[in-house]
Amino acid sequence: MDVRFRLDELVARLGGELVGEPATTVRRVATLDQAGEGDLAFLANPKYQSRVKSCRASAVILAPAARDLSDLPRIIVGDPYSYFARVAQLFNPPEVFAPGVHPGASVASPIPSSVTVAAGASIDTDVELGEQVVIGAGSRIGRGVRIGSGTRINANVTVYHDCVIGAGCIVHAGAVIGSDGFGFARERDGSWIKIPQVGRVVVGDDVEIGANTTIDRGALDDTVIGNGVKLDNQIQIGHNVRVGDNTAIAGCVGVAGSTTIGARCMIGGQAGIIGHLRIADDVVVSSGTLVTKSITRAGVYTANLPVQGHGDWVKNFAHLRHLDALVDRIRALEQRLEESTPE
Amino acid sequence: MDVRFRLDELVARLGGELVGEPATTVRRVATLDQAGEGDLAFLANPKYQSRVKSCRASAVILAPAARDLSDLPRIIVGDPYSYFARVAQLFNPPEVFAPGVHPGASVASPIPSSVTVAAGASIDTDVELGEQVVIGAGSRIGRGVRIGSGTRINANVTVYHDCVIGAGCIVHAGAVIGSDGFGFARERDGSWIKIPQVGRVVVGDDVEIGANTTIDRGALDDTVIGNGVKLDNQIQIGHNVRVGDNTAIAGCVGVAGSTTIGARCMIGGQAGIIGHLRIADDVVVSSGTLVTKSITRAGVYTANLPVQGHGDWVKNFAHLRHLDALVDRIRALEQRLEESTPE
Amino acid sequence: MDVRFRLDELVARLGGELVGEPATTVRRVATLDQAGEGDLAFLANPKYQSRVKSCRASAVILAPAARDLSDLPRIIVGDPYSYFARVAQLFNPPEVFAPGVHPGASVASPIPSSVTVAAGASIDTDVELGEQVVIGAGSRIGRGVRIGSGTRINANVTVYHDCVIGAGCIVHAGAVIGSDGFGFARERDGSWIKIPQVGRVVVGDDVEIGANTTIDRGALDDTVIGNGVKLDNQIQIGHNVRVGDNTAIAGCVGVAGSTTIGARCMIGGQAGIIGHLRIADDVVVSSGTLVTKSITRAGVYTANLPVQGHGDWVKNFAHLRHLDALVDRIRALEQRLEESTPE
Repeated sequence: MDVRFRLDELVARLGGELVGEPATTVRRVATLDQAGEGDLAFLANPKYQSRVKSCRASAVILAPAARDLSDLPRIIVGDPYSYFARVAQLFNPPEVFAPGVHPGASVASPIPSSVTVAAGASIDTDVELGEQVVIGAGSRIGRGVRIGSGTRINANVTVYHDCVIGAGCIVHAGAVIGSDGFGFARERDGSWIKIPQVGRVVVGDDVEIGANTTIDRGALDDTVIGNGVKLDNQIQIGHNVRVGDNTAIAGCVGVAGSTTIGARCMIGGQAGIIGHLRIADDVVVSSGTLVTKSITRAGVYTANLPVQGHGDWVKNFAHLRHLDALVDRIRALEQRLEESTPE
Repeated sequence: MDVRFRLDELVARLGGELVGEPATTVRRVATLDQAGEGDLAFLANPKYQSRVKSCRASAVILAPAARDLSDLPRIIVGDPYSYFARVAQLFNPPEVFAPGVHPGASVASPIPSSVTVAAGASIDTDVELGEQVVIGAGSRIGRGVRIGSGTRINANVTVYHDCVIGAGCIVHAGAVIGSDGFGFARERDGSWIKIPQVGRVVVGDDVEIGANTTIDRGALDDTVIGNGVKLDNQIQIGHNVRVGDNTAIAGCVGVAGSTTIGARCMIGGQAGIIGHLRIADDVVVSSGTLVTKSITRAGVYTANLPVQGHGDWVKNFAHLRHLDALVDRIRALEQRLEESTPE
Repeated sequence: MDVRFRLDELVARLGGELVGEPATTVRRVATLDQAGEGDLAFLANPKYQSRVKSCRASAVILAPAARDLSDLPRIIVGDPYSYFARVAQLFNPPEVFAPGVHPGASVASPIPSSVTVAAGASIDTDVELGEQVVIGAGSRIGRGVRIGSGTRINANVTVYHDCVIGAGCIVHAGAVIGSDGFGFARERDGSWIKIPQVGRVVVGDDVEIGANTTIDRGALDDTVIGNGVKLDNQIQIGHNVRVGDNTAIAGCVGVAGSTTIGARCMIGGQAGIIGHLRIADDVVVSSGTLVTKSITRAGVYTANLPVQGHGDWVKNFAHLRHLDALVDRIRALEQRLEESTPE
């Protein structure tokens, strides 16, 4: 596939102000450093503006404040990064799959003829698939599942019975949607009685779910993932969690049961949120931070440790085990100084 | 499926004292807040007792101390949460699978006729399956594996050769049992020689293993998961780990090789336990805590950080890098005060 | 399979100095504690040397400094652990798979006759496999993938289109190679535009990839895993990460996008490395440590917390939220003491 655009074509489609030769043709997007002949580069972060001068791209996307940093043909737009994303989508349209059911797949529900089902996939009874849904190789779609149009399920994904996935979603390989929540009642002897998990997982539209991410079904009610939510790889979402629209969660995050996360939040990698909390809209949680109480106001929240050379760490962190005693010593000092200082 | 019970039927099956109309019929369990006509609610946590008054359930499960909080028909029992779990099981019996091997499955061992093997599953040679075992779609059961009666393996699970899983277990989608432990000897040039991992994973009875959880096979001896152990999603268990009976481990926990965890422990989400440790029985580890030394006594153990607004965090945590210097300053103050204070 | 070696045969193959009866025959390797008749034990860690005396193995591998700790037949070598690994490989050669394509597999590319493809596996078009490659049950090899000779892909692995895996690699069950990186541009309304991920994952030779580990494809350029790299289970590698030769990463580690890790590094379990950093060669990161800045020099780096009984933790860690105020109090004390002490 050879996709080329003239700059004036791009501006006609996506907007922006064109400076320089309109017939300049570009075939790819590229970073400032690596761009060459035929590439369209972009400056998203002002910190890299020194690289614009030496950039060898055929054209560049710049913010208004940076318009004179280059003599190259250029497109001036308010948000070069989002513009770059749109151009990249033009150059790299989603793969088109030939519709049809692979002879090595097993399909037990009527499905639209525009649907693609790959080798080794299996679709149980009472499943409803929208138009142009793609079910990847080896994936399992459980009984009663509903999936909206255009959603693409990659290989070796498991969707448990009765779960709902919206339209325009992407689910990456190895993801598991609708496994039982971790719900047990404890007996006096320490053994556990399983609490049946009878809720579902309900995923909105335009959601992306990363590879090997797991989302448990609700215990009594549903687990709900809002529209436009982006989940990276290896995330664990507990039962009855609710994630608000357009919230993005980075890799390896764990969210324990019954926690509600607001809209437009950004949760950093390896962060954790314990159960039964409420996180407000527009909250940013830094990487590696464990959230142990509800957050009621938008803002950035952090609790992680400054990395050190091991020797320094041994010296410094040993005191953490005795911080309370240290505070006592300071208090004693204050008191003695108070007593010994005549007013 | 429409399952209904009269309260006197429930008490006849599960015990408890019935207060109010014995013929009251319930069809579901529900939380105090969401319960309505036909629902059986429960008060497990005294903190929610104010909600009992306004509860619109048809009946409610209460502890003896709470028996007069409601005028609704009610069942009085010592542990309402565990009673609720048993009622929920009555209302939601495990799915019954039609026995038989799907034509899209591959089975290379003789198996009982009561076993269910779903589409795309494959069972290697020398496998022994108990009665009514269920092997989910796309799952792989390796050579020489033994699985006890009634165990249900969900979709896309992999069990490596020679591993043993007990009876009455549930293994969720994407779990991997018996992959090689992470064992290498380092050469002088920094390259690694693989140490063959020739132990097995041996899983007891009534164990639940969460989605995408991984349990490595032992290096020389076995990795052992005791009876009644409950493992949440995305847990990593290293080679030669031993987990005692009825221990419960929450999501995203990592346990490094050769560590032994006692019985009836509870390990919080995203906790980590390094290798070659011994954790006593009845130990509780808080979420996000890294255990770096053996724990010899029952109790609750914690090491995680209080989350803060990012600005406060920057101010406070910068000092962590200099805690040792801070202690030196306190010591100097104490000394000077000692010297300047005549006895 | 019954594999036996005389000690003189082992020394002829692997080197070392033989002390004692050359015809002593061993059938297995074992730990000092568990070894018995027919076993070859080893002392790798001087800390266990008291166990050599009571060891009941038929023979033992010792370092020169330990040569007189035992009267057993013994092999004296500079690095007993690496010698043990080599002996263990002799006793436990890798499984030999019968070549051929299982009738339940789907293969859409021409492949060498020495390749093994198990039940339920599917291989897309334009795939190139080396000699004796093994593709496990239910695994998916995407379009245009290249895999070098002798590489073994276990069950339910997914390799996305166009990725490259070298020779002699082992990929464990559930691993995902080449899923989309987590790349989105944010719109003003908080919604996200997907940035097409058009790079590949390129994995070197002799790499081991653990169960359910995920490696994202690059955004524009490739994600690169060097030769001899060892990745444990449940690791997440973000897009455009580069991992240097012979680096070993333990379980549950997350490496965020565009970070470069040097050669021969060792990253402890549950550690995290944020994006866009550079980690030098020969860096060791302790378990549970979050690396938030580049590391330019070899050495050991740590940031984790000492675990405590919960009560002690509550007392000590509460002060962390007020460390800045504590430092102010110390400063005030110093100042007052300065003022009150006449020079």
